[in-house]
Amino acid sequence: MGKCRNHPDRETSYLCSKHNVYMCEECLKCNDPEIYCKFRSACPIWFMERRKARWEKEKRAEEAAKKYKVIFKPEDKGIEASEGSSLLDAARKADIHINASCNGKGSCGKCKLIFKSGKIKSEPTTLLSDREKEKNYILACQTKILGDVTVSIPEETIERKLKVAGMGQEATSRLKGLVKDIHPMLKEIPLELEPPTLDDPVSDLDRLNRGLKKTGCDISHLSAGIKVIRELSTAMRDENWKVTASIVRRNGSNEILNVTPGNGKATSLGLAIDVGTTTIVVYLVDMSDGSIIAATSGHNRQAACGDDVINRIVCAEKDGVLKLSRMALATINNLISEALTAVNADKNQIKNIVISGNTTMTHLLLKLEPKYIRREPYIPTASEFPILKAGDIGIKSNPIAAVFIMPDPASYVGGDIVSGLLFAGFQRKDPLVLFIDVGTNGEIVLGNQDWLMTASCSAGPAFEGGGIRWGMRAEEGAIDKISIDPETFEPAFSTIGDVAPRGICGSGMIDLISEMMLTGIIGQNGKFKIDSSHPRMKKDGEDLAYILALAEQTPMEEDIVFTEIDINSLILSKGAVYAGFMVLLQEAGLDFSMIDQILISGGFGQYLNIERAITIGLLPDIDRNKFKYLGNSSIAGAYMALLSDDYRNEARKISNSMTYIDFSSSSHFMDEFTSARFLPHTDINKFPSIRLPLKQ
Amino acid sequence: MGKCRNHPDRETSYLCSKHNVYMCEECLKCNDPEIYCKFRSACPIWFMERRKARWEKEKRAEEAAKKYKVIFKPEDKGIEASEGSSLLDAARKADIHINASCNGKGSCGKCKLIFKSGKIKSEPTTLLSDREKEKNYILACQTKILGDVTVSIPEETIERKLKVAGMGQEATSRLKGLVKDIHPMLKEIPLELEPPTLDDPVSDLDRLNRGLKKTGCDISHLSAGIKVIRELSTAMRDENWKVTASIVRRNGSNEILNVTPGNGKATSLGLAIDVGTTTIVVYLVDMSDGSIIAATSGHNRQAACGDDVINRIVCAEKDGVLKLSRMALATINNLISEALTAVNADKNQIKNIVISGNTTMTHLLLKLEPKYIRREPYIPTASEFPILKAGDIGIKSNPIAAVFIMPDPASYVGGDIVSGLLFAGFQRKDPLVLFIDVGTNGEIVLGNQDWLMTASCSAGPAFEGGGIRWGMRAEEGAIDKISIDPETFEPAFSTIGDVAPRGICGSGMIDLISEMMLTGIIGQNGKFKIDSSHPRMKKDGEDLAYILALAEQTPMEEDIVFTEIDINSLILSKGAVYAGFMVLLQEAGLDFSMIDQILISGGFGQYLNIERAITIGLLPDIDRNKFKYLGNSSIAGAYMALLSDDYRNEARKISNSMTYIDFSSSSHFMDEFTSARFLPHTDINKFPSIRLPLKQ
Repeated sequence: MGKCRNHPDRETSYLCSKHNVYMCEECLKCNDPEIYCKFRSACPIWFMERRKARWEKEKRAEEAAKKYKVIFKPEDKGIEASEGSSLLDAARKADIHINASCNGKGSCGKCKLIFKSGKIKSEPTTLLSDREKEKNYILACQTKILGDVTVSIPEETIERKLKVAGMGQEATSRLKGLVKDIHPMLKEIPLELEPPTLDDPVSDLDRLNRGLKKTGCDISHLSAGIKVIRELSTAMRDENWKVTASIVRRNGSNEILNVTPGNGKATSLGLAIDVGTTTIVVYLVDMSDGSIIAATSGHNRQAACGDDVINRIVCAEKDGVLKLSRMALATINNLISEALTAVNADKNQIKNIVISGNTTMTHLLLKLEPKYIRREPYIPTASEFPILKAGDIGIKSNPIAAVFIMPDPASYVGGDIVSGLLFAGFQRKDPLVLFIDVGTNGEIVLGNQDWLMTASCSAGPAFEGGGIRWGMRAEEGAIDKISIDPETFEPAFSTIGDVAPRGICGSGMIDLISEMMLTGIIGQNGKFKIDSSHPRMKKDGEDLAYILALAEQTPMEEDIVFTEIDINSLILSKGAVYAGFMVLLQEAGLDFSMIDQILISGGFGQYLNIERAITIGLLPDIDRNKFKYLGNSSIAGAYMALLSDDYRNEARKISNSMTYIDFSSSSHFMDEFTSARFLPHTDINKFPSIRLPLKQ
Repeated sequence: MGKCRNHPDRETSYLCSKHNVYMCEECLKCNDPEIYCKFRSACPIWFMERRKARWEKEKRAEEAAKKYKVIFKPEDKGIEASEGSSLLDAARKADIHINASCNGKGSCGKCKLIFKSGKIKSEPTTLLSDREKEKNYILACQTKILGDVTVSIPEETIERKLKVAGMGQEATSRLKGLVKDIHPMLKEIPLELEPPTLDDPVSDLDRLNRGLKKTGCDISHLSAGIKVIRELSTAMRDENWKVTASIVRRNGSNEILNVTPGNGKATSLGLAIDVGTTTIVVYLVDMSDGSIIAATSGHNRQAACGDDVINRIVCAEKDGVLKLSRMALATINNLISEALTAVNADKNQIKNIVISGNTTMTHLLLKLEPKYIRREPYIPTASEFPILKAGDIGIKSNPIAAVFIMPDPASYVGGDIVSGLLFAGFQRKDPLVLFIDVGTNGEIVLGNQDWLMTASCSAGPAFEGGGIRWGMRAEEGAIDKISIDPETFEPAFSTIGDVAPRGICGSGMIDLISEMMLTGIIGQNGKFKIDSSHPRMKKDGEDLAYILALAEQTPMEEDIVFTEIDINSLILSKGAVYAGFMVLLQEAGLDFSMIDQILISGGFGQYLNIERAITIGLLPDIDRNKFKYLGNSSIAGAYMALLSDDYRNEARKISNSMTYIDFSSSSHFMDEFTSARFLPHTDINKFPSIRLPLKQ
């Protein structure tokens, strides 16, 4: 809670997550940005302090509970747990990965532990055999902690990431073949040198250079650091003048990074890493043939510092960028470990790495000051980076591994978008394409082989569940598809993983708003047209809300509702994205009819129903066949750049050739945004194929 | 003591310091190298274990003495000292520099201390005033330690290196003007950048590059490391977009090493460092005009590990190269501190450094494995080095300072010789020049602008006093000039510093042997022609010796003698050098008459009497006007390379264009060496101007 910037006498829970100012509800509803917040037009989503307050309350309650010590054998990992919490929660808190497919509902019977000592209370279960019960087996999720406890984790319960390698096979089938000639950044050149004699007494370094020259290596701009030179004499003599030199080409000159004894063929691995604000994906690649031998993904631990890049930067300003860097590195390095373990490989085999992420993620990972990214005029420290050494930035690999950072064209259009273009490839062709990647930030690229324009609009976290009463990410239990009976207003829905509903994800929200509009539950302005007397309506606090799932259907035993505020958040988000399309087209002197293709990138597109997205006015009303879903194009582009010098150069070229349009000071954008705050749009002629219900 | 390699039943004290084998006297006298030591012909000097044994005995005696604690105020530096030793010795042991012009004889009265507490015995002195005596002043050199002692060092006693700056003025007058256009390796470019706007939102790094481009800097091959990038955003904003970028050109590309706020003119200093086996010299240079603002020199602390490069390598093999590196760095960094203090400058102002040293010194300083330098086929790790960073090698300066290491053409012809040629400059002209630098190792270069040949002959440490009963370096108290009365054989001599004789230095030995030969005391074979019955002769142990100074003339109260073994050592040394000249000339198809000039470099030449050196057959019997003394050409060349890109390139060119002739396997050299083991030479026709005494 804080005081409204414009009405200091009012306490409000609405916090602008970009400018860190509070505003009351009246201010939020005002469309005149000159009066309140200059940037609000481009930044429609406000973090709901109220929800945060609830979390904090829960946290305080947990902190007040009695604490006991839980020890997990055989590794003797200890953790403090609250009285009454489950052993499964304790294990997760201790960062112990145990199998639990049903996510703690007591239905899969996989989270078996062996009770050793202490005070617990286990619910009866039929999922343990009599023999197991004799051996003191219990289910972690069905066992409450009532005192200090010691348990042992049986072998079968430890979560094995065997699908890691399998995921690699899927990724390989999608991507392999995209790169014909493999050119790693760090090359390993095996050499057999002539031993020195009195007639040929050149120095070890000169002898090495001579050997390299014979292999066709350009030695005129070859250099070696003092550390390499220090180890040279031993390395060259250890295997009788057979050596392998590791060379990286950087900025027009070649640097010898390492010389090791022996010239046998060693496995060389590479990493393609997509550092997303939410999710980090790692591909472990065999550099000899480009096959992805393992793939892992996990939540970016920085999420503890907020959902979006602005909150991450605020956190970095408060606690230091080092903390955020460590969080990302911990996630990345864990994922690398998993991938290495799955294929029984060693980190020192990793010699090439490509990292793709948005500009803020890049800055935080590399420990660059991010604060000027969120301050006008929004300046990143660097757009393009030299080839770095993994050891210098903390990536778990061979310390000399060469790291290519996807260049970041602007503060709010980053390397993930450049990477996406590498994969999408339209910038090599003639047809005109609109490329969109909608997450917390909506990035848009428009262009073809001749030109590229790009912009970013703060879509806000709504599509990813942020700031929405029952919003969640597209994970198990998320309502992802909805239809509503036009007579009874009864909903029918499906959830991801076909389990009981726990919330609603972005595609579900789009479905919901589309259905609510088409059935007349809400008007084109996003306001409810029926009142709380309807059985599907209720008051959620002071807000009117539609009941999507009843308490008895949900594991939380609470109604899943969608409030007018939720609807407004989503309308602001979709309006910002659509306004972005419009302004970018106007800047280019084009309209939607001239677009040959719309490419949708990122996780958001995965469950998206194009028709429904058009219905609410998020996507333009054009030929549905022009839409194409790309999947995670950021990791795909990183993979391509990992294997190919040409693609690395193309990435630099893309970054340099993009014209960035700044919306934060654009009056065009403001106008378009205002027009788009309607379902589907104030100008209904823009959406001719949408059949609206009877005149409202 | 050890067992003779060829006669294992014999204990011997003669140790080959190159091959680390013992040989008995019989073996030493044998000229057939096939039988005994393949390399002995090129390596005539043997370290005298006997002398070492005596030192060790003295050391043991000292160790046996009772120890007391001495504390020097005001810095509270503590040291253990032996009972009966002087406070001056204790101060030196504690590395405290106090004034003592008379070197402890009690005659200058400068080493004043204030006695605080403890047990001492002071000799009476008239050099302290009554007032001083009242204040408990004592003379450090006249006070013996008889128990734990605390003393205080008065301000006037602390040695001030004020002459450091004065030495710089001398050096400046010698060298300034040699470099017309100053081009440091590390350039500091002041910039005033345009602040970013919404219309010009390029990244900080791009903005910097754009600013650099405007100054004419080639940014196509410009790079910056991650550390520089990390500090960029703050550095650029701290002084409102005024910055200074430090850029080094390395291997065809430019690297930004540092960006600091502000663009005012700062003093930039440079260092020229000559790392000699014996002495290290440091010039502190104002990079703006090339004036040498301070100059310091000191003994290389590695001397504790032996006098010559071979012993240093042996020591590095035993104790690790790190120890030797630290010793050299300690010496260098102390000298830098002295120079900085003398002119009140800060180490961070030092941004450019050139280091010149022989190949072994370079290897040890840079922590490169030196052991293959002394093993056939004598291979250095590297000849040419990239521009290094001072922080990476431990030099006390700005850690980003660019360090140029003079390239080392061969294992036994190093960067000091290349540096010497830079200064001598004959490789830019037509006349044919023989360049010689005689120290422990004798390096020779022959050539002109068209070609350069070089070789090294192990002259051994005799010329620097090593392995000679009363040998010493050319320091205060060294007998440097001698004449002998042909009738009485009474010597007349002078010493450096005009003090009582403490030993004999190289030029003194050359004088002595020349005089002994001309007066008939010794024959051309170096054997005494008179026996021990002569008053000027005595037995020194088993060896016959000439008494140069009587015990009563010396501070040690011992006769300074010159033994037959000493004579032989010197003949071997001079023979090796002369044989080197001969073989190099033969390889080039030349003879001495074709030489236009002989340039003598290094400290050895300073007191050298050319006529006498010809008389003993060290230098060839040619026109005396052709000889020229260069002084320390290694530091002079380092100074030139510090200021000039052209000279740095020339140094690399010299190193690469030198043809190295290896003497260790040359039968020519062996023959010439055998012929030269005579005074002046077995072929007297080679020395027509030498008038020998009557037929011997």
